[in-house]
Amino acid sequence: MKIAHRCTRKAALAHPRQGVIAFTRTAALALIALLATVLAHAEDGYDLWLRYHPIADEATRAHYREAASEIVPPEALGRYGPPVTTMNLAQAELTRGLSGLLDRPEPVVPSPTRDGSIVFGTPKSSTLVAKLNLPLRQLGAEGYVIRALTHDGHHITVIAANSDIGVLYGAFHFLRLIQTQQSIDTLNISEAPHVQLRMLNHWDNLDRSVERGYAGQSIWDWHKLPDYLDPRYTDYARACASLGINGTVPTNVNASPIGLTEPYLKKYAALANVLRPYGVRVYLTARFSAPIEIGGLKTADPLDPAVKAWWAAKVDGIYALIPDFGGFVVKANSEGQPGPQDYHRTHAEGANMLADVMAPHGGVILWRAFVYSQDQPQDRAKQAYSEFVPLDGKFRDNVVLQVKNGPIDFQPREPFHPLFGAMPHTPLVLEVQITKEYLGFATHLVYLGPLFEETLRSDTFAHGPGSTVARVIDGTLFHHRLSGMAGVANIGSDRNWSGSQFDQANWYVFGRLAWNPSLSSRDIAEEWAKMTFTNDPAFVEPVVNMMMGSREAAVNYMTPLGLHHQMARTSHYGPGPWVSGGPRADWTSTYFNRAEARGIGFDRTATGSDAVSQYAETVAAGFADLKRVPDEYLLWFHHVPWDYKMRSGRTLWDELVMHYSAGVQAVSDMRKTWDGLQRFVDAERYDETKAFLAIQEKEAKWWRDASIAYFETFSKRPLPSGYGQPEHDLAYYESLCFPYAPGGAPRPKASCE
Amino acid sequence: MKIAHRCTRKAALAHPRQGVIAFTRTAALALIALLATVLAHAEDGYDLWLRYHPIADEATRAHYREAASEIVPPEALGRYGPPVTTMNLAQAELTRGLSGLLDRPEPVVPSPTRDGSIVFGTPKSSTLVAKLNLPLRQLGAEGYVIRALTHDGHHITVIAANSDIGVLYGAFHFLRLIQTQQSIDTLNISEAPHVQLRMLNHWDNLDRSVERGYAGQSIWDWHKLPDYLDPRYTDYARACASLGINGTVPTNVNASPIGLTEPYLKKYAALANVLRPYGVRVYLTARFSAPIEIGGLKTADPLDPAVKAWWAAKVDGIYALIPDFGGFVVKANSEGQPGPQDYHRTHAEGANMLADVMAPHGGVILWRAFVYSQDQPQDRAKQAYSEFVPLDGKFRDNVVLQVKNGPIDFQPREPFHPLFGAMPHTPLVLEVQITKEYLGFATHLVYLGPLFEETLRSDTFAHGPGSTVARVIDGTLFHHRLSGMAGVANIGSDRNWSGSQFDQANWYVFGRLAWNPSLSSRDIAEEWAKMTFTNDPAFVEPVVNMMMGSREAAVNYMTPLGLHHQMARTSHYGPGPWVSGGPRADWTSTYFNRAEARGIGFDRTATGSDAVSQYAETVAAGFADLKRVPDEYLLWFHHVPWDYKMRSGRTLWDELVMHYSAGVQAVSDMRKTWDGLQRFVDAERYDETKAFLAIQEKEAKWWRDASIAYFETFSKRPLPSGYGQPEHDLAYYESLCFPYAPGGAPRPKASCE
Repeated sequence: MKIAHRCTRKAALAHPRQGVIAFTRTAALALIALLATVLAHAEDGYDLWLRYHPIADEATRAHYREAASEIVPPEALGRYGPPVTTMNLAQAELTRGLSGLLDRPEPVVPSPTRDGSIVFGTPKSSTLVAKLNLPLRQLGAEGYVIRALTHDGHHITVIAANSDIGVLYGAFHFLRLIQTQQSIDTLNISEAPHVQLRMLNHWDNLDRSVERGYAGQSIWDWHKLPDYLDPRYTDYARACASLGINGTVPTNVNASPIGLTEPYLKKYAALANVLRPYGVRVYLTARFSAPIEIGGLKTADPLDPAVKAWWAAKVDGIYALIPDFGGFVVKANSEGQPGPQDYHRTHAEGANMLADVMAPHGGVILWRAFVYSQDQPQDRAKQAYSEFVPLDGKFRDNVVLQVKNGPIDFQPREPFHPLFGAMPHTPLVLEVQITKEYLGFATHLVYLGPLFEETLRSDTFAHGPGSTVARVIDGTLFHHRLSGMAGVANIGSDRNWSGSQFDQANWYVFGRLAWNPSLSSRDIAEEWAKMTFTNDPAFVEPVVNMMMGSREAAVNYMTPLGLHHQMARTSHYGPGPWVSGGPRADWTSTYFNRAEARGIGFDRTATGSDAVSQYAETVAAGFADLKRVPDEYLLWFHHVPWDYKMRSGRTLWDELVMHYSAGVQAVSDMRKTWDGLQRFVDAERYDETKAFLAIQEKEAKWWRDASIAYFETFSKRPLPSGYGQPEHDLAYYESLCFPYAPGGAPRPKASCE
Repeated sequence: MKIAHRCTRKAALAHPRQGVIAFTRTAALALIALLATVLAHAEDGYDLWLRYHPIADEATRAHYREAASEIVPPEALGRYGPPVTTMNLAQAELTRGLSGLLDRPEPVVPSPTRDGSIVFGTPKSSTLVAKLNLPLRQLGAEGYVIRALTHDGHHITVIAANSDIGVLYGAFHFLRLIQTQQSIDTLNISEAPHVQLRMLNHWDNLDRSVERGYAGQSIWDWHKLPDYLDPRYTDYARACASLGINGTVPTNVNASPIGLTEPYLKKYAALANVLRPYGVRVYLTARFSAPIEIGGLKTADPLDPAVKAWWAAKVDGIYALIPDFGGFVVKANSEGQPGPQDYHRTHAEGANMLADVMAPHGGVILWRAFVYSQDQPQDRAKQAYSEFVPLDGKFRDNVVLQVKNGPIDFQPREPFHPLFGAMPHTPLVLEVQITKEYLGFATHLVYLGPLFEETLRSDTFAHGPGSTVARVIDGTLFHHRLSGMAGVANIGSDRNWSGSQFDQANWYVFGRLAWNPSLSSRDIAEEWAKMTFTNDPAFVEPVVNMMMGSREAAVNYMTPLGLHHQMARTSHYGPGPWVSGGPRADWTSTYFNRAEARGIGFDRTATGSDAVSQYAETVAAGFADLKRVPDEYLLWFHHVPWDYKMRSGRTLWDELVMHYSAGVQAVSDMRKTWDGLQRFVDAERYDETKAFLAIQEKEAKWWRDASIAYFETFSKRPLPSGYGQPEHDLAYYESLCFPYAPGGAPRPKASCE
């Protein structure tokens, strides 16, 4: 329908100075019908934020047509490819983007012929760019400038970089400005990424299941690789490049040893060939015991020379197939995975062995700090710190430690991980979870920008005030060569990529923050909404507000006031504050909520586990002091009586109930907001979002009701007046069973325990 | 690009008599660019055979525009819906189809205004149809007529039926005639389905894995049902209706008991609401032990009154939610599934108990005959017959027995199942496998039409010559009220639905043959190729030839001359003639090939298992006689020395090698054919098919080489001159291991055994 309008609108607007072709009303109508048919599936979210639909407003479009009147590629482009090169892609993207947005074929000319020329290239590929002497040097291999200037009497805009990938990044930036309808008249932009390793971690298994994936199967069709290259791989790479994501780990951190056998290496190599022109390097997960499982060795002891030799040969083999291979991500001695401790070696000894064999090739080891041991009775929140801080300074310089945003596990809200700031001699990579394992799977609209931002802006006080997590992980605080940010991908085979339309925003905001951790999550949401839907402020404003409030809504209806890890066992689908027993206490909800007759919450002060002591003194003092701890971390750090008087003047119990209820109310409001936006959104994306919001409201109420039903058995207090009792009794909520909830590891036998 | 041409072509063709809108060359070019962008993903196979792209040839299109000039719906249509009704869908389909094919908006008028009117409706909904007194009575609830006639001085075409679904079927038939460019000038078609139950069986698990599925995940997103209805469900229903498929079993025959719990029934009900207007009824698989697992009973004994009461209540509950529920499909006492024999009851006792509780609602029980017992040392090929023939006449009249095409298990070639013709008192449903478990998964181009046709045309001689399987299963041979054909679906979440473009043809040919088992598989292939790609004979002829030869090619490179069940263990991916040992002999290849120094093949004559005796005498005599048995069944029925002289004059060994090699050569030829057809096919579908054919050639060679490498260890004979030795030695082929091959049941631990 939309397209159809475009078609007729164009006909009406056309200027008669060029050759006129008769175009009848009937033909126009036929075209409308035809397009409506052909395009029935066009707007399903597959195009992500790269839609390039024509700018609706005539005057605006006309203005941009003047301001981006033609494209001038580097003269060396004719000598590029095949195969497709990054510079080809930059030209293709500018052509596609400008032709789409400006609703006309964008001319390509060898040199500027008029005002509005868009010149792009590197000093090496373009004489014109070289002549302009732009300040590129300090921008490194991935930065770029976009600058308006006058050349030969024409106002032109130059997109220039030291490298082809910088030019491609600049092209995407330039197009984004038009997509979001910002001025491009007097641009003077210099950009370089603040973070070096900007990586997606796919927890994708070799059977195409995705651990904690809610967007269908893995996009990697391993069985058909390397012979068949799904066009989707290219679309994935392009989307990553549009955000500056420059690394991908296609395989699960819970890795199969078979993933390092020769047939699989060939599959990764084929994939790497597709990703390379988009600047995305392949990394792999390595199972520490692979030398035994596929190498035929008797041990995987990192100090055993045969083990090291095996890894060296394996790594050489990988580089022979993938010359720009990035390195290994390793989950060791965590949740049952093998690791160096199996041989009484330290994490450093394990990581360094791999680092040594990787070093000659320039690869890195991303060693995950997400460890907690069955044998340690210590508060699980403390264990990573306890294990790794003593190792600070003992890692090779091509090892980075990959640390989750909080000390437990991607909860709706956690305080920042105490390792940030605590290992000055080790580069730390921030790992966040883009897939919503603990935040409602695909059907809850939860924009994670504020969560990521909250972590990045947290002040560790490691070097006094201003020692933010962002400055730890961008390497500036402790002057590290390596810096990085990794996001556990929410990408799958679903047509909409991420499980829902709005979950695309979480991929987007991760990429943008990895490029520049100081960006505002609200600005990013606005950018995304404009690109993905429309620039109309009557749409953008309510949608951005809804997105920005959505994470706090989820915190409220799931785990308010510092509660954490309260979900159902195994699947993590829905509430389970009553979960207890099983193989380990620190996999249960009761371990974390500690609800009993007197009160609720985990005492992590000196009178409890003393986890607060892992933070810098200023931070620790604030968390430990009941008077100063922020409400949102109250039950994270303190065990508090039900009648504890909150800052609001209400009792803890009343406050808790009101937070749960506010979460539900917020979702109801989101539904109302969306219902009012139908006119802005194509049918399929509108309907999907509407249906998902209805699910979210139902499940938010479920979370609230089940949690209250459980906790009121301890608090034994009435609900504050005006707040309804849970719809069912506790036994009902406890009886619910979802053995086939998505995202779990494959379970051979469906059961609820 | 294609679309773009259409747009300009239209502009050039437009007749100036109507209001002319200025349409500039620039605007036209812009539109081209725009469409190229927007339509980048349009031709990916999602549209199946229902593409409705404009007829390319001008004169042809002009002719059809005259012959289908306007649509005349029944006057009662205004009173239909919402919700959407079948008659709405008929109109929508005609509008969509004609507007697309004829490249103009098809006018809809209340009564014929000119020659070429397409009138549709039932006598009840349309006064005009009622007045015409068409011979509808004998066409039943699903038949239709399409008839050209003169009315009020206009040449019109009427699509009429007794029921709305008949009208929808007629609409699809009418559109197919135009899609395949047949004359619609003097139509006089009366059609009714030959088979009553035309069903897809999805082997889809509740976790969205698909047993033996090679097209991604299940299309059923159980977790989000009933709240979210993926638009794909509607597209699925429409595709089924276009073929006349009127039943679907969305769940696996290896059923989870949880699939019969209330939450899942609500999911099926939501699905049934989507499918209903398209004439597709929902059936469910029932796990025989469900009364224990979800009913809390101690037994599932079918003669236990409490068990029967439980099933009765369950069935009542299902009908309360799904008033047109079709019935149960049951796999019992087969491959480890529970069943009545667990309680020393017969299959009839088990089926009849369920039939009795289903009968008041009009539902049926489809009881699967695919049984073989671990405890019986009997040739596996004989067991279904041995178990079921004694039960003939003992089943309730709403029980049908669902019998696979052959006595083993969907092999590339099997003789027809001996049960066909052997149970005159029991209606038999033919079960075929559309998904290619044993025929190369998704990447081998194997058109199954000839396989289905071969079974349907097989003469059982049960009532003398002419007692074909088709006449057994369409109910005419033994005069049964119930008749049916079931296909194990190849449908999944892949964008192309079926795993490959050409696998769509297997869904298509199943549906067409289920409607009318006497259709020719070649005609159907031609129809499909025209609808799916183009009517150009330069494309259609080579493609149809390629399709028609493809199944014999697969037989040759996999299991020539009657060999069967020679694939790798568990995954069934690739060759494994050496497979032996394991839990049961009749799951191994050596059990079936019986290769040894003297010869090869399974003696099923009187000197062996005597399976031949299960066929009617005429048939049995032919199979048992080494002089008369067709070459293609030689090693199915006979153990033959390596130097046995074949009809060709060659030794068995030479013939075997030449068949393997011919299979590979045929695939090489298919690749060449496809390479020559690039100009007819859009890029994505062309490239996918090209890549898959390359995989098929590689794997065909693998099958040939591995099989020869194994069998030559027994034959100890040289290959015939000019035939190359296997590329690798036998140990190499035996060492290959694909623990993550798709389509297997979920394996918690990847291994090759």
